[in-house]
Amino acid sequence: MFRKEIKVLDCTIRDGGLINNYQFSMDFVKAVYRAACEAGVDIIELGKKLAVSDEYTREKYGRWNFCDDDDLRTVIDSCECQNSPLVAVMYDVGRVDVSTLAPRDQSPIDMVRTACYVQDVDKGIDLCKRAQDQGYQTTLNIMAASAAIERDLVEALDQVNEAPEVDYLYLVDSYGAFYSEQVTYYLDLYKRHAPNKELGFHAHNNQQLAFSNTQQAIIDGVNLLDATINGIGRGPGNCNLELLLNFLKNPKFNVLPVYRVIQEHFVPLRREIEWGFNDIYGISGHLNQHPREAMKLRANAELRERCHDFFLSSARLEDLGV
Amino acid sequence: MFRKEIKVLDCTIRDGGLINNYQFSMDFVKAVYRAACEAGVDIIELGKKLAVSDEYTREKYGRWNFCDDDDLRTVIDSCECQNSPLVAVMYDVGRVDVSTLAPRDQSPIDMVRTACYVQDVDKGIDLCKRAQDQGYQTTLNIMAASAAIERDLVEALDQVNEAPEVDYLYLVDSYGAFYSEQVTYYLDLYKRHAPNKELGFHAHNNQQLAFSNTQQAIIDGVNLLDATINGIGRGPGNCNLELLLNFLKNPKFNVLPVYRVIQEHFVPLRREIEWGFNDIYGISGHLNQHPREAMKLRANAELRERCHDFFLSSARLEDLGV
Repeated sequence: MFRKEIKVLDCTIRDGGLINNYQFSMDFVKAVYRAACEAGVDIIELGKKLAVSDEYTREKYGRWNFCDDDDLRTVIDSCECQNSPLVAVMYDVGRVDVSTLAPRDQSPIDMVRTACYVQDVDKGIDLCKRAQDQGYQTTLNIMAASAAIERDLVEALDQVNEAPEVDYLYLVDSYGAFYSEQVTYYLDLYKRHAPNKELGFHAHNNQQLAFSNTQQAIIDGVNLLDATINGIGRGPGNCNLELLLNFLKNPKFNVLPVYRVIQEHFVPLRREIEWGFNDIYGISGHLNQHPREAMKLRANAELRERCHDFFLSSARLEDLGV
Repeated sequence: MFRKEIKVLDCTIRDGGLINNYQFSMDFVKAVYRAACEAGVDIIELGKKLAVSDEYTREKYGRWNFCDDDDLRTVIDSCECQNSPLVAVMYDVGRVDVSTLAPRDQSPIDMVRTACYVQDVDKGIDLCKRAQDQGYQTTLNIMAASAAIERDLVEALDQVNEAPEVDYLYLVDSYGAFYSEQVTYYLDLYKRHAPNKELGFHAHNNQQLAFSNTQQAIIDGVNLLDATINGIGRGPGNCNLELLLNFLKNPKFNVLPVYRVIQEHFVPLRREIEWGFNDIYGISGHLNQHPREAMKLRANAELRERCHDFFLSSARLEDLGV
């Protein structure tokens, strides 16, 4: 599938950081950045830009939760690259301090992505406005669309459609619950109610569908695609960047540097932290549930493989046919 | 997706046996059979029915390579079930002795599936005829469609279309090379050139697409779907039965017994043998290659994670953009 408008956003560090509290070493982040550069990825998201607080201390959380300009510059300066990717960071509604965001021309950041639930879309749009006012590209990522009341979602889409401060609007399958049919259904909603917006898609791999659903999003006209190296990400992880680059026929991409960083950095990392599909996440995706309980189970050495028991305890009676 | 014509064929033992030379214990096979019964699966394939030979000795190969009637009866009689699945076995062209196939009314077998490459389709049809003459349902599974010359494939389809001895005709993605677009493309070929035939689909999970491609086959009208418990199968394995049953909304299916047998039998088995997606199989699928080399690499403790080196050594120069 070749379409020149398609852009790939690597969110390896930002989504992967959810499993290790953003404790990636500087060397690891540099290696990921280099791979993204050499692979021709359009945008790389290097973490969140949260405010330090009593809850979010620098001691407990790694530096990619805060993305200080100096840290970002250290990464960016480590790799000379003809076509450097844009650098993105993520804003979580309610956990940021916009007053610390320097104007874009004084910052290593190019894009601010704001994640929010449907009910917080006003706050999300406000953060986009603050970021755009400072010169940044913006995205609004509406999380957990599969669990939203459709009427509320539609209202949010109508509202975003009228918000010039949002450059890209994302469909996010936070629970990994979508089949391709649902991707198409929701994207139709997005296209009808937010026709002014360029669309993005962010998948999760609960049911082994992150990559195929991303393909479906492409078929349905989405031009900004999230993926992570080796599919790293919370719980079952994300759409694998290497699979996506293999699929896209655009000659600007080169998959080999991605396989190189997997071989050199992700294979060792897999011995320390877990991500990727397994039966437990398959069930939470099927049941359209937040992966919280599934992750808790996977952290319990005794229970982590007990998929049958997990299904029984997670499902509603009607899911069990009783 | 609900369509009452859809039938699910569990080939756990037959495809899983490719990784352990069909050495599954009788207890394991009984547990799989019980799960298939209780889950409401329509057909279960319990192995191959090859002739014993100098190459295929009973010492080296397990009993599910030969599927003697007595062994099959032991399995079937172990579980009382209201709607027992039909029992299938697989024929490989050139490795069977049809003279040993008893008439269906004297046999525990209901269906004989014949696997062949495009160039052997005459031999495949002949085996279907022998099986149908003895009263069996038959399928012809044309392997590696993605690697066949399309003109040869079309000729084979035309021929199968005129062969009443073939009840079901399969599209088989042996190399796990298909994206959903290709599934649709090949099924269109099948429907145009073999309109008389009911179609089946058999996926492999090289690129994490076995389940999604099976969904695509359903959308494209295929009514006989192969899957295996926990996705077990050669190399990256197959479409996961439990994911497929979750997707199909037919109330005749019940997924819980499948999760139970995973928890009790497949979790321990995973400590002994490997199956499922990994980077190496992702590459062989992308390159549309037989998984032979990938499997060899995975068996080598030193090289098994070297995906970058594998890509370099497997790809043609033009795949590398040089």
